Amino acid sequence: MQPVSYIANDRHPIALCEGNAAYPMGFHAYGVHSGLRAARFDMALLWSERPAIFSAMFTTNAVKAAPVLVTHDVAERGVCQAIVINSTNANAMTGSQGYQDAVAMQELMAQGLRLDPPLVAVASTGVIGVPLPMEIIRHGIQELTKSWETPTELGDGIDASHAILTTDTMPKTRAASVTLAGGTVHIGMMVKGSGMIHPQMATMLAFITTDAEIAKPMLDALVAQAVDKSFHRVSVDGDPSTNDMVLCLANGLSGVPVASDPDQEVFGQALIELMQYGARQIAQDGEGATHLLTVKVQGAVSEKDAALKARAAVRSSLVKSAVYGRDPNWGRVVAAVGSAGHEFDPNQVDLTMNGLNLLQAGQPLPFDEDRAKALMADTEVLFEVNLHAGSAQAEAWGCDLTERYVEINARYRT
Amino acid sequence: MQPVSYIANDRHPIALCEGNAAYPMGFHAYGVHSGLRAARFDMALLWSERPAIFSAMFTTNAVKAAPVLVTHDVAERGVCQAIVINSTNANAMTGSQGYQDAVAMQELMAQGLRLDPPLVAVASTGVIGVPLPMEIIRHGIQELTKSWETPTELGDGIDASHAILTTDTMPKTRAASVTLAGGTVHIGMMVKGSGMIHPQMATMLAFITTDAEIAKPMLDALVAQAVDKSFHRVSVDGDPSTNDMVLCLANGLSGVPVASDPDQEVFGQALIELMQYGARQIAQDGEGATHLLTVKVQGAVSEKDAALKARAAVRSSLVKSAVYGRDPNWGRVVAAVGSAGHEFDPNQVDLTMNGLNLLQAGQPLPFDEDRAKALMADTEVLFEVNLHAGSAQAEAWGCDLTERYVEINARYRT
Repeated sequence: MQPVSYIANDRHPIALCEGNAAYPMGFHAYGVHSGLRAARFDMALLWSERPAIFSAMFTTNAVKAAPVLVTHDVAERGVCQAIVINSTNANAMTGSQGYQDAVAMQELMAQGLRLDPPLVAVASTGVIGVPLPMEIIRHGIQELTKSWETPTELGDGIDASHAILTTDTMPKTRAASVTLAGGTVHIGMMVKGSGMIHPQMATMLAFITTDAEIAKPMLDALVAQAVDKSFHRVSVDGDPSTNDMVLCLANGLSGVPVASDPDQEVFGQALIELMQYGARQIAQDGEGATHLLTVKVQGAVSEKDAALKARAAVRSSLVKSAVYGRDPNWGRVVAAVGSAGHEFDPNQVDLTMNGLNLLQAGQPLPFDEDRAKALMADTEVLFEVNLHAGSAQAEAWGCDLTERYVEINARYRT
Repeated sequence: MQPVSYIANDRHPIALCEGNAAYPMGFHAYGVHSGLRAARFDMALLWSERPAIFSAMFTTNAVKAAPVLVTHDVAERGVCQAIVINSTNANAMTGSQGYQDAVAMQELMAQGLRLDPPLVAVASTGVIGVPLPMEIIRHGIQELTKSWETPTELGDGIDASHAILTTDTMPKTRAASVTLAGGTVHIGMMVKGSGMIHPQMATMLAFITTDAEIAKPMLDALVAQAVDKSFHRVSVDGDPSTNDMVLCLANGLSGVPVASDPDQEVFGQALIELMQYGARQIAQDGEGATHLLTVKVQGAVSEKDAALKARAAVRSSLVKSAVYGRDPNWGRVVAAVGSAGHEFDPNQVDLTMNGLNLLQAGQPLPFDEDRAKALMADTEVLFEVNLHAGSAQAEAWGCDLTERYVEINARYRT
């Protein structure tokens, strides 16, 4: 596949490229139409040729869907060889029957692949509170097994990337080649989500694969670090869903180890860049969105504080509405940044919007309204805030709030 | 004035009634048209015949407006006799000039009333980042002084209740008579706010007066308790503005002391009921709102946890959109409740909407969609969630999210 962007120097040999979760060696991903949906792919299988080290992060919502509970147990054991995924039904708030259904999904898929059930993870996304239609799920698993038994291009991950979508308007995938001391490793990703909390028909799911040889504690740490700098900084509605998962499988098939620095740092950076790409894609594809909104907070006392403030700003309904209306309304951005984290001196704050200076040392600058509006006609709006309180920085990503968002979410079931 | 509702028994002799901040003995409130606005009252004076014990709570936003800083100093001293208020301009993010202007407002008003400046508090609400037009403010203070010098019905607080409004569609006032051991005391209130964070043209301001004789530490504690159970549980946009204030003056003119229980408890309860009334009024008058949304969380491990969860639910864009669309979408409510505070068992949760059972012990109940929609046609929607995890409960108040909200906030400056 063609490299999309290179971020390469002597210490940083990472090449981002097109590709998905089937990109690394020994990974295959299949998508089928089971009948959950009228006429679109709706179930997927991600499979590794051998058992993979497994790192997982789950929603912090107290209401956890049944597949979250099942996959949590797989993650506790730390090894996974396959993930079966369905869209349209979240299998959440479905009681003990829902848990039994998630276990049945795991067992049926394991049977098809001739694996021990504890090697199979389960992920679901879609409507809450409706029992899984198990006949359809069973049929889908049969179809996935057939695809898996006749290896062809079907395992290239493209159908799978579509099958996991709900209200998303586009599949979200990316891959990376990473040059380490011992050779090249590959990382692949497929993601879905057009909101962080969409109990009706959405959720954030991310599946990341790599052929690197890496120990579980290091993979756990690097995945947690990357999630913290990516998916934890995106907001469409503001809250975690009942079904969110980030699952990462490392099967070691490249034979190239990630054991210590500088390899560890480079590999960790590649995970960050991939997941940040995925996070931006989710924000951009937010329900009803017309703009990707990025807020970068600089000069903060810590990265954590910068991230808190940036997230408060991308989450603010007033900031989001102003971006939609192409209004360079810096007061809303500064007030939102001020609502979270450590105190700072408002008289020190600088602010720019897509490069245009709006505020310097707390003083509003005169600016050309027409030029500002023209800058906001672009589909991306970047606010950069410098607090001059320290040297840390962080970005967060969101989208604008539109009448269409309200329409989608007010009229959803009618 | 006529009592509006009685909440009276032997231990609880509180009568809510129509009335405003000028209701208690010795308080007067005036409103004038200074010229900040085209043709509406825009400046107000609240004055006590003698210096009053002063309790104040301010925005937690790191970006604090100049009047917040000036009034904070008054609160530190603990005595206040007058508050001068302007709408349309927040005097926030206005640098050192803004601070000098707020001090000048304090000094000019003090001069007119022949008071020491430290006895005068200042409050502002309106646009951020625009210098106060001091010529107009000076004129307004002259007009307020004239009204004060010729005591007539002008001091009845009605004009003042209008003068403090911005995007509000109605004045928000209430009063109470409270029968204590030593006699009757009175409490009055005027409030403004159609959002918690509206840096363009709004903010929450509450002015509460009483003729009770009460020591500052007790007043501080009772005001903090009441704010925690009222204004801290309302959300329109979700965040505090740069200018939020709750100011309470107690001038003792009734001669009736509040010194210990049961008087302390009764007086505290009256403050809670008044402020909860104000909180509901603010939620109901949220920008673009068509429904008052109340979420009551019961069976929680603590009141704090119940309040956190209730606030998460009234703040959720998805819950707010569903209420607007008259969609009894209980999944969104449960997921929002699950996103905050302590874990709980989703399989125990009961949920009703305006009395209709939607969920029992975590199991969705069949219900008549048409009947549910009809129940939601009312202007008030109440979700009651029982977690069955403890015995504590709390309510929070918000409003629905409408296309009109987006329109108001996207098109505001155009």
